[in-house]
Amino acid sequence: MKIGKNIEQTENVKIIDAKNKICMPGLINTHTHISMSIFRETLDGYTLQDWLNNKIWPMEDKLTKEDIYYASLLSCIEMITTGTTMANDQYWMAEETIKAANELGMRLEVTRTINDVQGLQKQRLEELEKLIEEYNHKYDNITLNIGIHGLYTTGEETVKTSIEMAKKYGMNVHIHFCENEQETLDIKKAYNVSSPVEVLKKYFTETNNILAHVVKVNDQEIQELKKLKVSVSHCPISNLRLGCGIAKIQKMLENGINVSLGTDGQGSGSNLDMFETMKFTGLLQKGVNENPKNLDSYEILKMATINGAKALRQEDKIGSIEEGKMADIIILDLNTETCIPNGNIFSSIVYNAKGYNVCHTIINGKLVMENRQIGGIDKEKIYQKCAEIIERIQ
Amino acid sequence: MKIGKNIEQTENVKIIDAKNKICMPGLINTHTHISMSIFRETLDGYTLQDWLNNKIWPMEDKLTKEDIYYASLLSCIEMITTGTTMANDQYWMAEETIKAANELGMRLEVTRTINDVQGLQKQRLEELEKLIEEYNHKYDNITLNIGIHGLYTTGEETVKTSIEMAKKYGMNVHIHFCENEQETLDIKKAYNVSSPVEVLKKYFTETNNILAHVVKVNDQEIQELKKLKVSVSHCPISNLRLGCGIAKIQKMLENGINVSLGTDGQGSGSNLDMFETMKFTGLLQKGVNENPKNLDSYEILKMATINGAKALRQEDKIGSIEEGKMADIIILDLNTETCIPNGNIFSSIVYNAKGYNVCHTIINGKLVMENRQIGGIDKEKIYQKCAEIIERIQ
Repeated sequence: MKIGKNIEQTENVKIIDAKNKICMPGLINTHTHISMSIFRETLDGYTLQDWLNNKIWPMEDKLTKEDIYYASLLSCIEMITTGTTMANDQYWMAEETIKAANELGMRLEVTRTINDVQGLQKQRLEELEKLIEEYNHKYDNITLNIGIHGLYTTGEETVKTSIEMAKKYGMNVHIHFCENEQETLDIKKAYNVSSPVEVLKKYFTETNNILAHVVKVNDQEIQELKKLKVSVSHCPISNLRLGCGIAKIQKMLENGINVSLGTDGQGSGSNLDMFETMKFTGLLQKGVNENPKNLDSYEILKMATINGAKALRQEDKIGSIEEGKMADIIILDLNTETCIPNGNIFSSIVYNAKGYNVCHTIINGKLVMENRQIGGIDKEKIYQKCAEIIERIQ
Repeated sequence: MKIGKNIEQTENVKIIDAKNKICMPGLINTHTHISMSIFRETLDGYTLQDWLNNKIWPMEDKLTKEDIYYASLLSCIEMITTGTTMANDQYWMAEETIKAANELGMRLEVTRTINDVQGLQKQRLEELEKLIEEYNHKYDNITLNIGIHGLYTTGEETVKTSIEMAKKYGMNVHIHFCENEQETLDIKKAYNVSSPVEVLKKYFTETNNILAHVVKVNDQEIQELKKLKVSVSHCPISNLRLGCGIAKIQKMLENGINVSLGTDGQGSGSNLDMFETMKFTGLLQKGVNENPKNLDSYEILKMATINGAKALRQEDKIGSIEEGKMADIIILDLNTETCIPNGNIFSSIVYNAKGYNVCHTIINGKLVMENRQIGGIDKEKIYQKCAEIIERIQ
């Protein structure tokens, strides 16, 4: 990307007039499950464990490759129309998600989730390695990582093998960590440790780790986390919905931990609108700590952009509008009845903008949404397909 | 309003095709300051008291009647486009707000706020009585009440006189109550009581009272509130933003207190979108109490509709779609990329719909917004005027 006043124009250049609009880096969602779009608002009132064991996992067993493709298309449309230009996914049949992302020009990091739940960890690891061999460095917009579901669902041997694979390929590790109280208790028991952080200190010291949630850690554990190469992906909406609690983000920032933001999947997070996640992030830290000075708006914007890039070790490519970086840019129109007047531009973006204020989305220099329209897709068909999937598997 | 399959059609009847859309009661916002639209995103990081004393009140002193008119127009547009059909306002120069509401067909309850802050309580009370004499029963869509700012800003004598006025006119009382810790301490000191509820028990027993916020009350005080004729107007977004805390809504509901919802003004609440307020309401009670079973979606929908009508003693007229009630109805379109598929209709409305999903708004049988368009107004002029006001007074 070049920035300047008189950039030499090549032929067929597209000029976008952003007068009175806001031009900003695309949002980076560091924890989601893209194919879970089909579970939107299917479940309310479940704890994490009940939701997974008795509701989500049995439905997921029925998913086909085609289901994953359409569910991924829907999520990619949702992200592009709400200003997210990069997401860190954790699911399976990722080749279908990659196909959907490529059709729409979405930037993704994907994986094949590893866990021991069905005793199929050996097969899962093979599938992941096959995925890596086929897709690593194949597309500019697609990166891969090692997705470990969680320490409460994955045993010590599988964790060790996964970490070895991460080191072999120089890949990030993406894991759910301390999402709720029960998980924390389960990890302590399974790993015979006094704190889940002990497991990280044992196995996760040489990898770059993205820890999703991190709700149930105490002040001491937060200090320990600082010493490890971890980024936190804060998913406040999902955490509230599943009754997990509220992560100590203020404390993490005070300890210098890199905190980025995630929506989680739509099953618990309702949608992939990162503007909502920014708003919840700021309001919760002010409200719960009864301190309105907590988290200024600019800090939250960084969490949704450059901190996400850092978490994924792509800060040389994305997360800010800078010469030499990829052009992942969104243009917002805040000249609407719910946004006028806007006293402070950073506060307006964090607390009052919504996904639908995004009018143009550019990924890797390509205009993937123009005036809220994504070209070359049959939205209605995708909606219909997704509605049919959830009806069939529920 | 009539409900049925073969209603006799008069000439010039307007037929709205709501196929695949959601037809529901208009939302009722029981605590706002309509003319505060101009303060949107001007201030971040202030406590309630610092915000009022050093920022908001000095700016408000500079407001003219014309300012109030334009600021009110903006808020009425905002409410209509986001599905609110009735709001309980607390500000001053209400004749300008009434004028704006009448132009747009908005339903409001208004007042002239009473407090002792500038030692002008006598004048304030006279202004309120004059407002009542001029506007009480003048318009179908406008009701009046007695607005007492708060016990921390209003002394015992003024409270007594205000309550007498409420009884004389049979009017509701609308007051900020226990919004944050400092307010609670100030009330205890000023009134020499062990609990702010003691003041209610002394003076507010014969009136219907709408208490805004009610964040800082303990379990014992919640039980005491139950014995009084009070409704709570829960304003979660404002409470978080000003670092006030999180109201114990689950506990209030368990004690049978009528809880309705409010956005507060845009100065602390950012916007008047009641869908956001519903979402925060449900998520906070699940998350803070770490119990996902708290507050089912239907209960939250009631809080935003019929409970609001009850709070304002208008449940015979509004708050639900029933034969004989006024037609205050909104029609939602959830066939969008962020709402498809929607597994449960109530959950979808509470957790995933946003103001912009409202396509039509009907107030008192009149279609005040059709396909997101409000007729007969110059939106750009109103936006421009509001931007000029805040620039001038800041």
